[in-house]
Amino acid sequence: MKEHISTWFQGLQDRICLSLEQLDTKEKFKEDKWERTVNSAAGSVAGGGGKTRILQNGALLEKGGVAFSAVFGEINQNMQSKLQMPQGDFFATGVSIVLHPNSPHVPIIHMNVRYFEIYDPKTQQTINQWFGGGIDLTPHYINLEDAQFFHQQLKNTCDSYDSESYVKYKKWADDYFYIKHRQETRGIGGIFFDRLSPLAPKGGTMQNTNQENISKNQEKKHTFEEIWAFVQNLGETFAPTYAHIAQKNRHLPFTEQEKRWQMLRRSRYVEYNLIYDAGTKFGLESDGRVESILMSMPPQAQWAYDFKPQKDSQEEKTLNLLKKDVNFLVCSEIVK
Amino acid sequence: MKEHISTWFQGLQDRICLSLEQLDTKEKFKEDKWERTVNSAAGSVAGGGGKTRILQNGALLEKGGVAFSAVFGEINQNMQSKLQMPQGDFFATGVSIVLHPNSPHVPIIHMNVRYFEIYDPKTQQTINQWFGGGIDLTPHYINLEDAQFFHQQLKNTCDSYDSESYVKYKKWADDYFYIKHRQETRGIGGIFFDRLSPLAPKGGTMQNTNQENISKNQEKKHTFEEIWAFVQNLGETFAPTYAHIAQKNRHLPFTEQEKRWQMLRRSRYVEYNLIYDAGTKFGLESDGRVESILMSMPPQAQWAYDFKPQKDSQEEKTLNLLKKDVNFLVCSEIVK
Repeated sequence: MKEHISTWFQGLQDRICLSLEQLDTKEKFKEDKWERTVNSAAGSVAGGGGKTRILQNGALLEKGGVAFSAVFGEINQNMQSKLQMPQGDFFATGVSIVLHPNSPHVPIIHMNVRYFEIYDPKTQQTINQWFGGGIDLTPHYINLEDAQFFHQQLKNTCDSYDSESYVKYKKWADDYFYIKHRQETRGIGGIFFDRLSPLAPKGGTMQNTNQENISKNQEKKHTFEEIWAFVQNLGETFAPTYAHIAQKNRHLPFTEQEKRWQMLRRSRYVEYNLIYDAGTKFGLESDGRVESILMSMPPQAQWAYDFKPQKDSQEEKTLNLLKKDVNFLVCSEIVK
Repeated sequence: MKEHISTWFQGLQDRICLSLEQLDTKEKFKEDKWERTVNSAAGSVAGGGGKTRILQNGALLEKGGVAFSAVFGEINQNMQSKLQMPQGDFFATGVSIVLHPNSPHVPIIHMNVRYFEIYDPKTQQTINQWFGGGIDLTPHYINLEDAQFFHQQLKNTCDSYDSESYVKYKKWADDYFYIKHRQETRGIGGIFFDRLSPLAPKGGTMQNTNQENISKNQEKKHTFEEIWAFVQNLGETFAPTYAHIAQKNRHLPFTEQEKRWQMLRRSRYVEYNLIYDAGTKFGLESDGRVESILMSMPPQAQWAYDFKPQKDSQEEKTLNLLKKDVNFLVCSEIVK
């Protein structure tokens, strides 16, 4: 099954890269294939690799990365303590995307879809498996119409899976994509979920050796097939959703001051990814390929000491919306 | 005693700012006074504040920060686990400096000198006290003559304290200012030390409730007065040392390509400070003032995917020297 999932993720990477190249019109992705080598304990098996694709200096995208990876090995002490992972061996595969556009009127977007298996280190039996994922949008300037469209697309995808999931995963994204030290959300959020483990298959008995730790977010309401279909749908939602928002805004004119604001917002993106992002932590702690992990970094960013936007400016309006629990589905409520 | 130390640190901030303004010639520091407010457990006392001074868009310095702070409160769970601090209440005071110059031929420099007291939360008796500090230099292009000068200045300061200290604290800096995921030192290092606790005063009995944890680096070879004199000397070493290196290089011409390299090196500085730096962690975990903690961020930085310098270029030569255990005191050895 893990080969099937990993193969599907590679196909998703291909489709998304093709869509983004058509959207960009100018540049193509360049691919780096890499293999993971790990100095692990004697007898343990670790390895895997991935394909990192980067498009730079495009017409739409200043820097965009679409990465596939499939890695396996031992869950080390740091992964256990910093990422609340159980003891054992792991297999992890997924697709990660971060796009930094040229225009301050086109948002930064991020998506990740991933699948984990955990094995008993002695028997190599699968003791747990889960899916995770999320999409979130970081506009430099929040446009409420686009925000509504974006959240509606995610809600549609969620609704076909579980009618309660959009509200739950939207809240999860608000909590997860939160820059605690700035008391700001990273952008307008989106959805986020982790450790969605399937119902035990009929007749099967999936044994969890570390139940209290890993079952925190595992409701086990859905079958493997249902969760997997949801993750696939989410993956396919990405390209058309971003294309719509990018096409609508890419030709809007912008000023030097707006470009400067974009650079300042990018510095918040850097702070989030280096301080809080679990994917970055997982990558660095599991000795992943640094350039692939940090492809999420913007091509340029700026920090200004104690910058305060002007009163009633577009910049201030955006900052005021970078809060948890804003319902972007109903713009009329926000404008009040 | 803590008032005396804190007052001396404020004087050091004044002197360094004055020296740097004279050096810059164009701009002056602007000061933000701030007070720390903390939502702490009922009955516990927390507070303090500081003075953050920033000089921006100068003739020499694109952005320079010189910060003084004196804060106190309860050592929370995060500080205990992430910073290996003991249980109890704390008082912390210090001066922190990070300077980002305009020219790629002038290095980034950092200094921190600090003093901690730890109290029994019930009796408020002092159960431990220690000094920490360090200076390290991050040239965008390593100049071996400057590197030798810099390390010699630090060695002189160390030698007047303890003949073994330079070698020990130089190695500590190599280990501390290390960007693990890049397998690069942040720059040419310098010195770093932490938890230098004094010998118990004659007749006194300083009780350590958490001995095994906090005494890791405490040799207790020196009296309070000796350590304090060393920390003061180090503080006074900063301005003339940087002035010498800055004056020597500030008027060298530079190319677009060299400026670009500076931006890439600054992104490594960002990575180090947000992922590893203990001062940044302490600040964020103790609910410090965000703008003061992150004054170390460069005004601009760039990330390029998988950038590799040209063979035998100045950029490559610098990268090849970003390693631990290079003896910059003896340049002739390095050039071989």
